[in-house]
Amino acid sequence: MSKRAVVLLSGGMDSAVSAAEAIAAGFELYALTLRYGQRHSVEVQRACDVARDVGAAEHRLLELDLAAIAVSSLTDSEAALPEGRAMTEVGSGIPSTYVPARNTVFLSLALAWAETLGAEAIFIGANVTDYSGYPDCRPEYLEAFQALADLATQAGVEGRGVKIVAPLMKLSKAQIVERAEELKVDLSWTVSCYQAADSGQVCGRCDACQLRAKGFAEAGRSDPALQRS
Amino acid sequence: MSKRAVVLLSGGMDSAVSAAEAIAAGFELYALTLRYGQRHSVEVQRACDVARDVGAAEHRLLELDLAAIAVSSLTDSEAALPEGRAMTEVGSGIPSTYVPARNTVFLSLALAWAETLGAEAIFIGANVTDYSGYPDCRPEYLEAFQALADLATQAGVEGRGVKIVAPLMKLSKAQIVERAEELKVDLSWTVSCYQAADSGQVCGRCDACQLRAKGFAEAGRSDPALQRS
Repeated sequence: MSKRAVVLLSGGMDSAVSAAEAIAAGFELYALTLRYGQRHSVEVQRACDVARDVGAAEHRLLELDLAAIAVSSLTDSEAALPEGRAMTEVGSGIPSTYVPARNTVFLSLALAWAETLGAEAIFIGANVTDYSGYPDCRPEYLEAFQALADLATQAGVEGRGVKIVAPLMKLSKAQIVERAEELKVDLSWTVSCYQAADSGQVCGRCDACQLRAKGFAEAGRSDPALQRS
Repeated sequence: MSKRAVVLLSGGMDSAVSAAEAIAAGFELYALTLRYGQRHSVEVQRACDVARDVGAAEHRLLELDLAAIAVSSLTDSEAALPEGRAMTEVGSGIPSTYVPARNTVFLSLALAWAETLGAEAIFIGANVTDYSGYPDCRPEYLEAFQALADLATQAGVEGRGVKIVAPLMKLSKAQIVERAEELKVDLSWTVSCYQAADSGQVCGRCDACQLRAKGFAEAGRSDPALQRS
């Protein structure tokens, strides 16, 4: 049996590159996407496009009404999103787009599927350099999840634990753009905007749009997704 | 504002007593129940009964197709359940009713809601003495989840972290029966059987039925739920 990895695929560029890293490392890829009440639900469609584009063996969509228990401007289409913030502001403090315990919920579900599949690894696109102030994107957080995973599962108890891998953790957005090019990831499928329309049209003003634009600018590339939407 | 706790309520007796412990400790109770594809789905109805009986301020039901990604004899109605095992066997090794990462998924969702509510604690009915060999019911597992929770959330980062409380951790099933009596928990609402019918009729042969019967026998009580079903 080929070695397997579960990848959390959001439809954004970081998780797409993370998926490509898993393929490049020789894993058979099992992509997991959550429709959890995010306002930019077009990202779920884009996750399907990315899964197909990178060559996932399987792509599973789960429905979970996280919005019912986790209040955030990212799950409440009536709430105001931070817009037009200076880059010095983005990443200082925890923004209203933080969704309580989101990565913990997603990693837990990935862990359940990984154990069922006999997967050796879970890939997540978390990165800290250009991160938006989310506590559950930090290396120390992922280390704590690793410790938990080793104790939580039958596989862990039996010494066949799942490894949590965050290949982009130390990369800037510009480096992620460059890595995508090296791995031939078609970033035109990806969407980052927190309030993207169903057409994929982006706002250009939210933190996610600004971080993405800054990444492409610093890498000296144009964003291929702007042609698609 | 009264202090708040989220309690994971399954419809079984341990989580009912755990809920009553939270009330006894002065918490306003927010009960969370998952319909996750368990074969004994009557427990979800019983969780509603228990929430009402113990006086929860709110009871939230979430739907999650965990069965689609987590294979177990507890989520596959075609699979054989362990039945009629000697008590020396129950609790030795991890049985087929283990659901991959179930408590991790449930605690993650409880964590999301707790942060949204500003809750101080999460109560879970895990107990190790009479446990059925599940890795995610052990004290070291819950300690690892506590460490994770402190890093995962905005509340944790800001020093208002949620405390994970497992008040039954060291109790035997007989002691849990006695504690239920002290706290005036009506155990007739609870159901433990892994293959309970929608009527609440229990099999009497699965591990959960045997552990429950042993608990009542050792406590010198009869099980009031047997009258209800």
